[in-house]
Amino acid sequence: MNETCLAAFRELMTMDDVLILVHRNPDGDCLGTAFALKRAFENLGRRVCVAATGTVDRNLRDITDGAEELKPKFLPSAIVTVDVATAQMLGPDLACYADSVDYNIDHHYTNTEYARNNIVFGSASSAGEVLFDLFSACGVEIDDVIAEKLYAAIAFDTGCFRYSNTTAHTHWVTSELMKYSFDAPRVVRKMFDVVPLRQLKMERAALDALHVYRDGTVVLLPISRKMLEENGALDEDVSGMVSLIRRIEGCVVCATLKETKEGDVKVSLRSADDIFDVSAVAAVFGGGGHVKASGCLIKSTMEEAEARLLQAIETRFLKEKEIH
Amino acid sequence: MNETCLAAFRELMTMDDVLILVHRNPDGDCLGTAFALKRAFENLGRRVCVAATGTVDRNLRDITDGAEELKPKFLPSAIVTVDVATAQMLGPDLACYADSVDYNIDHHYTNTEYARNNIVFGSASSAGEVLFDLFSACGVEIDDVIAEKLYAAIAFDTGCFRYSNTTAHTHWVTSELMKYSFDAPRVVRKMFDVVPLRQLKMERAALDALHVYRDGTVVLLPISRKMLEENGALDEDVSGMVSLIRRIEGCVVCATLKETKEGDVKVSLRSADDIFDVSAVAAVFGGGGHVKASGCLIKSTMEEAEARLLQAIETRFLKEKEIH
Repeated sequence: MNETCLAAFRELMTMDDVLILVHRNPDGDCLGTAFALKRAFENLGRRVCVAATGTVDRNLRDITDGAEELKPKFLPSAIVTVDVATAQMLGPDLACYADSVDYNIDHHYTNTEYARNNIVFGSASSAGEVLFDLFSACGVEIDDVIAEKLYAAIAFDTGCFRYSNTTAHTHWVTSELMKYSFDAPRVVRKMFDVVPLRQLKMERAALDALHVYRDGTVVLLPISRKMLEENGALDEDVSGMVSLIRRIEGCVVCATLKETKEGDVKVSLRSADDIFDVSAVAAVFGGGGHVKASGCLIKSTMEEAEARLLQAIETRFLKEKEIH
Repeated sequence: MNETCLAAFRELMTMDDVLILVHRNPDGDCLGTAFALKRAFENLGRRVCVAATGTVDRNLRDITDGAEELKPKFLPSAIVTVDVATAQMLGPDLACYADSVDYNIDHHYTNTEYARNNIVFGSASSAGEVLFDLFSACGVEIDDVIAEKLYAAIAFDTGCFRYSNTTAHTHWVTSELMKYSFDAPRVVRKMFDVVPLRQLKMERAALDALHVYRDGTVVLLPISRKMLEENGALDEDVSGMVSLIRRIEGCVVCATLKETKEGDVKVSLRSADDIFDVSAVAAVFGGGGHVKASGCLIKSTMEEAEARLLQAIETRFLKEKEIH
């Protein structure tokens, strides 16, 4: 950690009336990090609050001590963002603060450094990992509550230590956090394991609708508005569906094709291993992403979208064969 | 680690013609640990092999370098067990070695210490964690292959760092392992994420058959032989089903009731939190287990078993209300 960043963070920790902002539709990392920082200020006797655009998902409300909405509560003396890569990501409710951010604490290497002080470490797994390193380097005391929030942040952004952003340092930080007293399995269970019954019902319907091609190496799942409605499912309930079908034995490429409210088809693509580049398929339709996870929008009917997508996947299979 | 154990392990590492035995129906922990130890002997130029009763599950064959069957290959000079709590757990194919085990490396505090040298650490998450500590304490060199196998062992037995056996030391050990070069997300994906399509189809059928009681706080899933047959599912495909339904939002107690080949009903009970003791319910039917996970066998038809189980759960709810 460089001295400029540490000096900025030390300055932040002297502030009072601190407003902590997170990104729109807040996730476990930004909330865990924000509430850990909030607790640190409270332990110093300061006035502090956390604000966000959008509501807090039910599975993350242990982190926010039950709060569903996070609104600014006072006129701040210092404004800090955590896990916010660009000022636009603050969302409409917090847009008024976009030009006045004093401290920007983040782990996205794409961070646009929009604040007066930018404390960005692009190699960290999560904002939670960054804040732990800052606390350690600057001697901010960690208690059981802070440890639990930071653990939640790191566990969330690493998919419970499964994703490739998990490093030796991530595990070392977690080892330090677990020396404090909190119920780590419960934190993980609350964040990841609880799903609404309607989502499970939706998963059932999805399994009925699977289209399997090329001896099971390609699995496509068309999700129509009708299917959503019949199962009382929300758009958010199907966001994880592509991970569900990616688990199928033998599957190399999979995709969900979701009919949007506007009648287009939103495609989420995943590959099971590094041997197939789904970003190349997404690019055919003007989309993009990573080798293993990409997305695109196809402006057509579901049937046509599926046929065109399958064609693009076939073409890519031939190309991959050339490469490997 | 006490000096007697370390001396025994140092002695083991001087041996040649080493036979490593694991428990029957081997899991990721015993296999990862055994193949890490095998590699350490190979690096020293020794003859070594791993043997097991039963076949290696498909999802664990990266650990065994593809091997499905593990048979003794020579007359050994030294016999070592890893992750084997009792000599009986060696199973029929290895029963002939039960009285001749020289070194017993394990993490089960229930280990019966059946060997000439017993190297048992009951507080470790996994046999993999024990072997790492032994390697470190005795200066056995770790390479990328050993690191990957030990990582697999630890990740398997901790449910990818989610279970309550995961300690600060577990994360510290993992941090050390991740300094070596291997693809950790791939290891986890191979072990946990790949499921046969027939299992997903079985999950779909299960969701159709859910019985929800007490405003969704009790969820029971009867699984008949017919349901298994119709979906081409194996008995092993339903073993994780109780975890699936435990995820349902609002669920406090859940159970699968599986019709056995003999026509009885095998019950697996789970509670979502510590507020309901399912072992008390299992005990009503002569079963047992832990507060959050128990099982029992009810000798009756499925319908009667479900009615009796529901009654026992109701009774326990009244009791829990008295306690809390």
